[in-house]
Amino acid sequence: MIRTYLCKEHKMIKNLPLSKIKPYLNDKKAVIWVDLQKATEEEYKQIEDVFKFHPLSMEDARKSIELPKVEIFDEYIFVVLYNFYLEKEKKYPIKKEIDFFLGKNFLVTVHEHESDSVEQMAIRLEKSTNGKHQGADFFMYKIIDHMVDQYFPIVDSWEDYIEELEANIIAHRLSKNALQEITKTKKNVLFFKRNISPQREVINKLSTREFGFICESTILYFRDVYDHIIRVYTELEIQRDLINNAFEAYMSVLTIQMTRTSNKMNEIMKKLTIISTIFLPLTFLAGVYGMNFRYFPEITWKYGYLLFWIVAVVVGIFMFWFFKRKKWT
Amino acid sequence: MIRTYLCKEHKMIKNLPLSKIKPYLNDKKAVIWVDLQKATEEEYKQIEDVFKFHPLSMEDARKSIELPKVEIFDEYIFVVLYNFYLEKEKKYPIKKEIDFFLGKNFLVTVHEHESDSVEQMAIRLEKSTNGKHQGADFFMYKIIDHMVDQYFPIVDSWEDYIEELEANIIAHRLSKNALQEITKTKKNVLFFKRNISPQREVINKLSTREFGFICESTILYFRDVYDHIIRVYTELEIQRDLINNAFEAYMSVLTIQMTRTSNKMNEIMKKLTIISTIFLPLTFLAGVYGMNFRYFPEITWKYGYLLFWIVAVVVGIFMFWFFKRKKWT
Amino acid sequence: MIRTYLCKEHKMIKNLPLSKIKPYLNDKKAVIWVDLQKATEEEYKQIEDVFKFHPLSMEDARKSIELPKVEIFDEYIFVVLYNFYLEKEKKYPIKKEIDFFLGKNFLVTVHEHESDSVEQMAIRLEKSTNGKHQGADFFMYKIIDHMVDQYFPIVDSWEDYIEELEANIIAHRLSKNALQEITKTKKNVLFFKRNISPQREVINKLSTREFGFICESTILYFRDVYDHIIRVYTELEIQRDLINNAFEAYMSVLTIQMTRTSNKMNEIMKKLTIISTIFLPLTFLAGVYGMNFRYFPEITWKYGYLLFWIVAVVVGIFMFWFFKRKKWT
Amino acid sequence: MIRTYLCKEHKMIKNLPLSKIKPYLNDKKAVIWVDLQKATEEEYKQIEDVFKFHPLSMEDARKSIELPKVEIFDEYIFVVLYNFYLEKEKKYPIKKEIDFFLGKNFLVTVHEHESDSVEQMAIRLEKSTNGKHQGADFFMYKIIDHMVDQYFPIVDSWEDYIEELEANIIAHRLSKNALQEITKTKKNVLFFKRNISPQREVINKLSTREFGFICESTILYFRDVYDHIIRVYTELEIQRDLINNAFEAYMSVLTIQMTRTSNKMNEIMKKLTIISTIFLPLTFLAGVYGMNFRYFPEITWKYGYLLFWIVAVVVGIFMFWFFKRKKWT
Amino acid sequence: MIRTYLCKEHKMIKNLPLSKIKPYLNDKKAVIWVDLQKATEEEYKQIEDVFKFHPLSMEDARKSIELPKVEIFDEYIFVVLYNFYLEKEKKYPIKKEIDFFLGKNFLVTVHEHESDSVEQMAIRLEKSTNGKHQGADFFMYKIIDHMVDQYFPIVDSWEDYIEELEANIIAHRLSKNALQEITKTKKNVLFFKRNISPQREVINKLSTREFGFICESTILYFRDVYDHIIRVYTELEIQRDLINNAFEAYMSVLTIQMTRTSNKMNEIMKKLTIISTIFLPLTFLAGVYGMNFRYFPEITWKYGYLLFWIVAVVVGIFMFWFFKRKKWT
Repeated sequence: MIRTYLCKEHKMIKNLPLSKIKPYLNDKKAVIWVDLQKATEEEYKQIEDVFKFHPLSMEDARKSIELPKVEIFDEYIFVVLYNFYLEKEKKYPIKKEIDFFLGKNFLVTVHEHESDSVEQMAIRLEKSTNGKHQGADFFMYKIIDHMVDQYFPIVDSWEDYIEELEANIIAHRLSKNALQEITKTKKNVLFFKRNISPQREVINKLSTREFGFICESTILYFRDVYDHIIRVYTELEIQRDLINNAFEAYMSVLTIQMTRTSNKMNEIMKKLTIISTIFLPLTFLAGVYGMNFRYFPEITWKYGYLLFWIVAVVVGIFMFWFFKRKKWT
Repeated sequence: MIRTYLCKEHKMIKNLPLSKIKPYLNDKKAVIWVDLQKATEEEYKQIEDVFKFHPLSMEDARKSIELPKVEIFDEYIFVVLYNFYLEKEKKYPIKKEIDFFLGKNFLVTVHEHESDSVEQMAIRLEKSTNGKHQGADFFMYKIIDHMVDQYFPIVDSWEDYIEELEANIIAHRLSKNALQEITKTKKNVLFFKRNISPQREVINKLSTREFGFICESTILYFRDVYDHIIRVYTELEIQRDLINNAFEAYMSVLTIQMTRTSNKMNEIMKKLTIISTIFLPLTFLAGVYGMNFRYFPEITWKYGYLLFWIVAVVVGIFMFWFFKRKKWT
Repeated sequence: MIRTYLCKEHKMIKNLPLSKIKPYLNDKKAVIWVDLQKATEEEYKQIEDVFKFHPLSMEDARKSIELPKVEIFDEYIFVVLYNFYLEKEKKYPIKKEIDFFLGKNFLVTVHEHESDSVEQMAIRLEKSTNGKHQGADFFMYKIIDHMVDQYFPIVDSWEDYIEELEANIIAHRLSKNALQEITKTKKNVLFFKRNISPQREVINKLSTREFGFICESTILYFRDVYDHIIRVYTELEIQRDLINNAFEAYMSVLTIQMTRTSNKMNEIMKKLTIISTIFLPLTFLAGVYGMNFRYFPEITWKYGYLLFWIVAVVVGIFMFWFFKRKKWT
Repeated sequence: MIRTYLCKEHKMIKNLPLSKIKPYLNDKKAVIWVDLQKATEEEYKQIEDVFKFHPLSMEDARKSIELPKVEIFDEYIFVVLYNFYLEKEKKYPIKKEIDFFLGKNFLVTVHEHESDSVEQMAIRLEKSTNGKHQGADFFMYKIIDHMVDQYFPIVDSWEDYIEELEANIIAHRLSKNALQEITKTKKNVLFFKRNISPQREVINKLSTREFGFICESTILYFRDVYDHIIRVYTELEIQRDLINNAFEAYMSVLTIQMTRTSNKMNEIMKKLTIISTIFLPLTFLAGVYGMNFRYFPEITWKYGYLLFWIVAVVVGIFMFWFFKRKKWT
Repeated sequence: MIRTYLCKEHKMIKNLPLSKIKPYLNDKKAVIWVDLQKATEEEYKQIEDVFKFHPLSMEDARKSIELPKVEIFDEYIFVVLYNFYLEKEKKYPIKKEIDFFLGKNFLVTVHEHESDSVEQMAIRLEKSTNGKHQGADFFMYKIIDHMVDQYFPIVDSWEDYIEELEANIIAHRLSKNALQEITKTKKNVLFFKRNISPQREVINKLSTREFGFICESTILYFRDVYDHIIRVYTELEIQRDLINNAFEAYMSVLTIQMTRTSNKMNEIMKKLTIISTIFLPLTFLAGVYGMNFRYFPEITWKYGYLLFWIVAVVVGIFMFWFFKRKKWT
């Protein structure tokens, strides 16, 4: 799908065919924006014909590139950046590529999937029919600014989550799948940080005076976008630290809890064993007086039985006292 | 709330309306300081009108920015820095933003909350009614110097705390919530370090000859502030190392203690089990002589009972000696 | 084995002997490609004679070098790069060196083993008999591009593997040799990353304007190869992080599982011990009434036996209740 | 306490009052050294008057600065460095600040505590009454060289200690307070490394041609001091690695030892339990034949008792054999 | 011991006294090599007199320096490098210093111990009596090249060792002193890496055009040596990673093994305890019927004894079945 916007002398003409746009390419007063969404091979070829893009950058625009980049050519710069959307119930950002070709007075955007950032720009342009437009570089700024602003809700959604996770861990409330959650969040943060890092580089380059295609006043705006992405990045670095802390704390708390469980169980075992250990000698004693020896003096004593109980109780108490003194109980 | 200070030819006029200040902007002999606290939208607009600040920096001044920065514009530099206050009983520094616009002969400070650093400057200015003022850059230095000096008590309060924590851990005195305390302090130190790091960059930039708005003699003073913040940063790096050491030591000591507890309990169990193990064969023996077989030679022996005791004692002693020799006790 | 290709004025002559190629070295319209595979000492000498290569680079070409590099000489640049092939069923990349000598109008490639990347170039050249050839630098680009493209399947094969490994670990399904697999994969990733890193440096150098032997338009293509290798490298860095995460998670899950096993067993032991502890005092009691004292009041009671059972059951139930209340069961 | 040394035309005049020294400040043939130890406020003011030092560096000289630094001013450079002394029986280096003001022909040293490095220079100067003195920069070199040389004994004392510690750990000889010792040494090494690092920077700056106050030939000597401090630093880095290794090894050995202790104790428990487990069924058997049933066939058998023993021994041996075969013993 | 070599116009004169060598110092056609092994103080003085070396570098040559370095003086450069030899049966490299003074047409080497690298150069020179010598810089290259080549066998010897160690660990074959071996190897690798790192810097400096004492063609050779040392360094980095991996794997395997041992023992304990737990109630029952109550109904039953056995067997089987069902066995 191709959409074209031609702004000239305070007028805006929509969806002119590419062939009619061509003559305006050298018209310094005209500003052209061409947006390709889910383009067919034929549309790509048209674009290549009209704008004379280098085969290498056309190849990059056709395929999906895994890394953001900015490349300078004689007549334009080629920029690859990403929209990120947080999938509902997944805490897991989805990546959608947008390619930009920025020339002196034109901007070509190429993307496979629908992009909010592009749409809001289209709506903006269509509304302001009266004219007074900025250059193609400012169009690009508007789209990128919107893209970067959408990183914040992703990062913010994690922040609260991590804080809560950590608070729970420190308070020794370990949920069953805490490990799973920590590992996933860690992976998400790492994944996002790795994706933001090269975007940051690209936007940094756009906000310097390196390229002739972005005018002085727009550079100030790109610097502002750069500040935003730096903030996202810094936030992600903090989150990485927090999540690592949370993992360490989780393992510590888990170890402590398990060892405590184990020690508490051993404690109980010890107490039970003490009971056994007190009764065993007594059982032996009872066994002794259950023996059937014919010549067995104690058996015939009158208070033999009473004596037995006295001895049994004394031995029992002595053992208990002994274990107590030894701090075994 | 807007406060204005106009210093000219050794006189200081307080709270002149902004409209009357405008003419002095190009007067090289005048020095202007405008302080906005909790400004209304109208006040922001006034400022924007009078000083012609770039919309981007006005936007930054209006909103709260998460990162310190310094930006250069044609007519002024825009600086964002932070006051930190330690909340009572919380060991947890609160962050309060101050924005500076520094021009050739004016300083505009914007902040939401009351700031000690700004107040002490205001008091200073109001006292020195006689005149002899330095430039706007020196005003800014005075405020920033005060801000940085307030970082020290925060860092110092942690230092003693960490030392004590570590001493306790190494001496094997683990308080119940040591883990919680370590994690919190670690987080505070990391948080503060992350905040100090970009402030350091900003102050470093102010102390170089990069900007035309700070004169040679004031740069020396900013260099001094830079030394102070470097000291804060170094202190924080040491604290991070110390707290990591403390965490490692805590986990080690905890592991050692728990394993010792476990081994001590096992030791006791072993001793109890030995007692059981000595009495069990004896009980068996007693059981044997309690049997009712009709043809039972030992039963009828005269010294059978005596012999039983002798055998029992000998077997008991032998087992004890055997366990002793095997080093089982 | 020596193969030579001479392209001149849209004609391509194959396998001309080296001696006949020599005159074309200074012919700017000719493009020469010489490929040495498993060269004999004599062939090396021929090459050295014809192209006047420096003894040091000839020595490097003869021997196998462990590190990629690019060296500039007056008449040529010397480049060492590696083909990597994934051994079937081994997940373990094999390294095969290719050396390039690139001059103004010649390319000499030296390699010990057959290389797909060289073969596809040879096939390409042989097919396009009609002429219209690019320079020697473009020949080199084509070979290196193919080499780098072959890194992707290696990296991709690991990616799925690591994802699966991690999913299994987090779901607490630990295979017997998980540790072995993690360690091997970690080693492979580290090994490959260490090999890619210097290749990246070499290709980066080739894609700058540093050397006079690569023309402007070809540099664009080398920049494209550089983007590819950066993507491989970034992917490997992510994999390293993932595998480290997987290892940490593995150890955590293993510790949890083993401690759980241990605690579950202790739990059972405790229950068994409780049974023993309940029966021991009862056995003692039974022993007591098995004693043969002549004067033994309870023995003669009519309901003595009934009472015994009542006492036994009461004591048993009491103990069970006691342990229950103490939460020992 | 102020000491002054004035060297001119091969003569050395000691303890001239500051006021008389002033005229020599512009005399290129004179070399002045002023040493302030535990200076009073009045003495500081005198110095400030005579040498016209910047208020900022005077403030630094008065207070104790936590970080070494070098600052360049128009008429002098200001250097802060530290003496370190190893406290007896403490393995813990004490830090003593020395401030230097180096001008074209003067050196002012300021320190609170007595410093060996300053004293040896004073003694040196007093001895060489004949004259032939180097410049003020060489005086500074002599003092700093002595300071740095005193770092070596500190580092060396730790080296042997760490080696011994590690040897003990690897040989599984863990002293009671090994953890405490490792933590302390680690802290000392970290502390010293952190202090040496900025000193190294300062001395590096002094050994470059950055400042006009140090002549070419003296720079060679500062380069030598720089080499020394680099050696100290490298040694400390190695020690940090060694102490970390030692800590890891300690924890490993401790874990191994404790687990071994635990396993050994369990082994003993198992053996004891086996004894119990063999005797319990036998006791049951004896109990059986102690029953008083009226109709009890075995009781009346002639060889009943003998049979009992045979059965008991056979059962006992069988159980022992069974446990043996199952490898339970 | 002093050896001198003077090469001039294709002739080589050996062991000329130093005094006679002096006049050739300014002869551009002469090349001088002086080798000092275990030099006496007098010999050092001679060298200092003849070559006018700076006192600082003479001091460095006399003493043993702990760090490689290169220093530039007006008339020569001073280089410190190290020979490393692997002690037999020790896996532990011994360090031997060699100092080089390289001037326009002379090379002075100073070393305490005999050095293979120096000897092979001496032999080389003595053999080639016919002349045709390169400059002093090439002499130095030859010695350093030999030095660096001797690093390879050291690194290689470790490589196999580490591979074997790791294979054993992963296969769960832990030798008794594996920990000791890992710690030692780790220390050796760290030690060697730390020593190679500054040598690498020195050789890098020699291979740039920084110094006037090494001619263009020799720089190519030094670049080759630099490649070699980079390879050694890279190999050491890989080994450090491998040894760290091995340590982690060792600790994991050890933990797993010990916990398995512990769990297996607990398993046995549980089985033994089950036997006890089955027999205890039976013993109690036997005890009950061994009681001597006068009024005891079951005793007089005809099939009482038979019933007892039935009850005992039923209870025993029930308990076994119960434990089985609960999965306690």
